[in-house]
Amino acid sequence: MPPDPRGRSEPAASNGIPDIIKDMSAEVVDSNPYSRLMALQRMGIVENYESIRDFSVAIVGIGGVGSVAAEMLTRCGIGRLLLYDYDSVELANMNRLFFRPDQVGMTKTDAAVQTLSDINPDVILELFLEHTTVKGFETFVESLKRKSSRMSAHCVDLVLSCVDNYEARMVVNQACNELSQTWMESGVSEDAVSGHIQLLIPGETACFACAPPLVVASGVDERTLKREGVCAASLPTTMGVVAGLLVQNALKYLLKFGKCLPVLHIFSPSLLFQGYNSLKDFFPTMEMKPNPQCSNAACLERQREYILAKPARDAAIKAKVDAEASSKVTGPIHVDNEWNISVVDDSEGQSSHSDISDALPQGLVRELPSADGYPLEEPGPSFDDLDELRRQLEALNAA
Amino acid sequence: MPPDPRGRSEPAASNGIPDIIKDMSAEVVDSNPYSRLMALQRMGIVENYESIRDFSVAIVGIGGVGSVAAEMLTRCGIGRLLLYDYDSVELANMNRLFFRPDQVGMTKTDAAVQTLSDINPDVILELFLEHTTVKGFETFVESLKRKSSRMSAHCVDLVLSCVDNYEARMVVNQACNELSQTWMESGVSEDAVSGHIQLLIPGETACFACAPPLVVASGVDERTLKREGVCAASLPTTMGVVAGLLVQNALKYLLKFGKCLPVLHIFSPSLLFQGYNSLKDFFPTMEMKPNPQCSNAACLERQREYILAKPARDAAIKAKVDAEASSKVTGPIHVDNEWNISVVDDSEGQSSHSDISDALPQGLVRELPSADGYPLEEPGPSFDDLDELRRQLEALNAA
Repeated sequence: MPPDPRGRSEPAASNGIPDIIKDMSAEVVDSNPYSRLMALQRMGIVENYESIRDFSVAIVGIGGVGSVAAEMLTRCGIGRLLLYDYDSVELANMNRLFFRPDQVGMTKTDAAVQTLSDINPDVILELFLEHTTVKGFETFVESLKRKSSRMSAHCVDLVLSCVDNYEARMVVNQACNELSQTWMESGVSEDAVSGHIQLLIPGETACFACAPPLVVASGVDERTLKREGVCAASLPTTMGVVAGLLVQNALKYLLKFGKCLPVLHIFSPSLLFQGYNSLKDFFPTMEMKPNPQCSNAACLERQREYILAKPARDAAIKAKVDAEASSKVTGPIHVDNEWNISVVDDSEGQSSHSDISDALPQGLVRELPSADGYPLEEPGPSFDDLDELRRQLEALNAA
Repeated sequence: MPPDPRGRSEPAASNGIPDIIKDMSAEVVDSNPYSRLMALQRMGIVENYESIRDFSVAIVGIGGVGSVAAEMLTRCGIGRLLLYDYDSVELANMNRLFFRPDQVGMTKTDAAVQTLSDINPDVILELFLEHTTVKGFETFVESLKRKSSRMSAHCVDLVLSCVDNYEARMVVNQACNELSQTWMESGVSEDAVSGHIQLLIPGETACFACAPPLVVASGVDERTLKREGVCAASLPTTMGVVAGLLVQNALKYLLKFGKCLPVLHIFSPSLLFQGYNSLKDFFPTMEMKPNPQCSNAACLERQREYILAKPARDAAIKAKVDAEASSKVTGPIHVDNEWNISVVDDSEGQSSHSDISDALPQGLVRELPSADGYPLEEPGPSFDDLDELRRQLEALNAA
């Protein structure tokens, strides 16, 4: 048996299924697939990268966005991926990343497992072939609730919706509202040059039924647009950008990094909706609050719970902020600069984790102008209701 | 011999090398790998998608960004790719997209050809193993000047720089300045959470020596940062987003789509530099004019040529604008809506190509708020000289 090139400390289990690795090595050697990821800790970006192995992510729709998202998470060493798709690979999919011509005819989930398990055998992969329709709803809900036998701590931590139609999005929305499950929605326009991602926290942000999907912001029902024989355009670039933005935000959500993190809900409000218009390299963001008149009963229930929990939540945030402020008075936590990334001799310690976005090791400089001047504190337009959102979109389209 | 699943109309040449396909089929069948790309024409995004087969793109550096850029262009059906890298695949690269564990030990160019020729045998691939250093400079320049025996019309149309060090960028800069070759620069920060792309047109925009590379905007020489044993962090997400933005802009440049195209130099000035800070999902853009005190002699020569050609260029722009204005008076060119993408009966023709960004077929709506309100006409800060750029960057970093 050849030595395991991934340096797993645990031998394969007797059933032939390799056990999950015990440790993600941070050793800087060519043979360590995790060295560049573990370096995120050393660079002060992520506090505990290795915790990524504890998370389960469900990806609904393994097409142009979902397959790339699955590959990114697999290469990042996510603990467990649940993959949902009923479709098969066709040559007509070859203009997007991921699937290969020799996989034509395989189900997308089988082809994905073939590729992903080669790339990183440490990731637990689970496949679901059911249509994500009203018919497959119960199976879908059950799969999100089930814990892995090899990862007892968690059910699913995050759902990524990468589907291409309205009905499937509504099914994901319904399931996540019922389970109080945070999810992220993604989409690419039919003309291939725009896309979006959106964070949905039941009760706290707009659900998919609260606000009209922006694809159909003018009131046209998206379902009527899907026609037999209609060939929507697609590009690997737009889908790659959307998948990258989606998984980057999934990582920020799971691993709790990035600036302006509200203590409980991680994302800056202005990141709740991230658009991408490639024709102009235009990236609008907007906040989307839940609609008190939402037609989805489970959403209304989550909204009530959210409001009821508000006093306790605010108190917890205040306590945490106070605790952090008092810990700052006693001085920052110094992190050793083990790799000596500096251009001058630097005997002082490096940045503390609490100000990771502002401080870099001495001599290292930001590649980009700092985003600090960007008014995240005053996010883009906030839409409290449907009519207001429609008005704003119409005004923008008319401009 | 099995039938060619890609439906090539030309048989393989007698030397075993398949000829370039004669036509890119627009037929909407599962077996056509180009159907979703040719749909860009039908959707009014691109005027002549098939012209992509006439272009040659050089990608310098087949790492985390370059390999994904190569895959995207291959899947888009680019005519010819020139791939430059001297490095080999390691397991430590597995946290980025593209390379597979079974390719460990192969040169990155060989591994890339293995993967890319499987994905799309219609693309001509040429490999260069030389170090892109001062030593390999002549070979590099010669390769950019050489025409393909199977594509006589063009030398290289665009160079994409996807290297990770200062010296290689300066070599690409020198070669492109000498050849008056338009190129795009890309980069990802050492902490893995920021990146940028930049368009460089010799004489017209800042060259890489005109303005300090933003990576080292505070004056630190990037060369001193590269140390043995230092493990920079990297993420498949950031690199995928940068590759996607890079290739999307390469496609816009080659296929001439996207709004606000100046007639001769394609890009809106505000797109000349596109940054990405993933911690805040912040995408700054800025214009970078050439530096009249640039230390690069070839750059100064291109600047002189650009200024000398200005009157003729302005006259050509004016003539084209006048011609377009008079053609508008005679009515728009109607494009058949062959696929009937509408939700109501629509006997009227669709949008003309000249206003593709504003008009969509009736019933189809924009996924995102229109970017028209975005002040592209008044781009971000413009930096005429080094000192001004430094001042602005320092002010931003101090904020």
